[in-house]
Amino acid sequence: MDDCIFCKIVRGEFGTTIVAENEYAVAFDDIAPIAPMHTLVVPRRHIESMAEANAEDLAMLSGCLLLVNDVARVKGIETSGYRAGFNVGPDSGQTVFHLHFHVFGGQRLRDMA
Amino acid sequence: MDDCIFCKIVRGEFGTTIVAENEYAVAFDDIAPIAPMHTLVVPRRHIESMAEANAEDLAMLSGCLLLVNDVARVKGIETSGYRAGFNVGPDSGQTVFHLHFHVFGGQRLRDMA
Repeated sequence: MDDCIFCKIVRGEFGTTIVAENEYAVAFDDIAPIAPMHTLVVPRRHIESMAEANAEDLAMLSGCLLLVNDVARVKGIETSGYRAGFNVGPDSGQTVFHLHFHVFGGQRLRDMA
Repeated sequence: MDDCIFCKIVRGEFGTTIVAENEYAVAFDDIAPIAPMHTLVVPRRHIESMAEANAEDLAMLSGCLLLVNDVARVKGIETSGYRAGFNVGPDSGQTVFHLHFHVFGGQRLRDMA
């Protein structure tokens, strides 16, 4: 997608520092962190949100989740703990319409909603 | 796991109302909801947390994520929006050590951490 900011990041157009990556997804820090550690896991392929995912996306979906674990290891929070989640649609506050998992850690986290 | 409360729910020992299910996971409402809609997606197989997941869990992981979408449809929030996420370890507030995805909706949600 030419106009998608996450597609541009995945393509390396902004020289974003990559925290971790695998065949299916790329991880980089959120530019507006809401926790000491706040990284995004973004599939390489453009997909608007989790609502668009289906049974054909098995490898991409699990690739994103396993990359969350890699991010936690890179950030050194695999023992202290971490949270990951995704938003879909208006009530969730989704603002970028390219599927992404937020990964949080580095402090005791509040409720998830 | 004999002593795991989520394993017992998955086995039907408490007669819990099932919101949605597939080959890999079962969804039921959280007993202490923090949003108007708060449902848990729990893999049928016992796994302590996402940190224990690996490349062999591809089908289970994607099965959980696709069931999140089914939960949103059953609850009628697929358009208004929803959030899903999981906790790992102390900083996250994980309290049940059987992997589960929280699914939230039914109101404008706060920040995720």
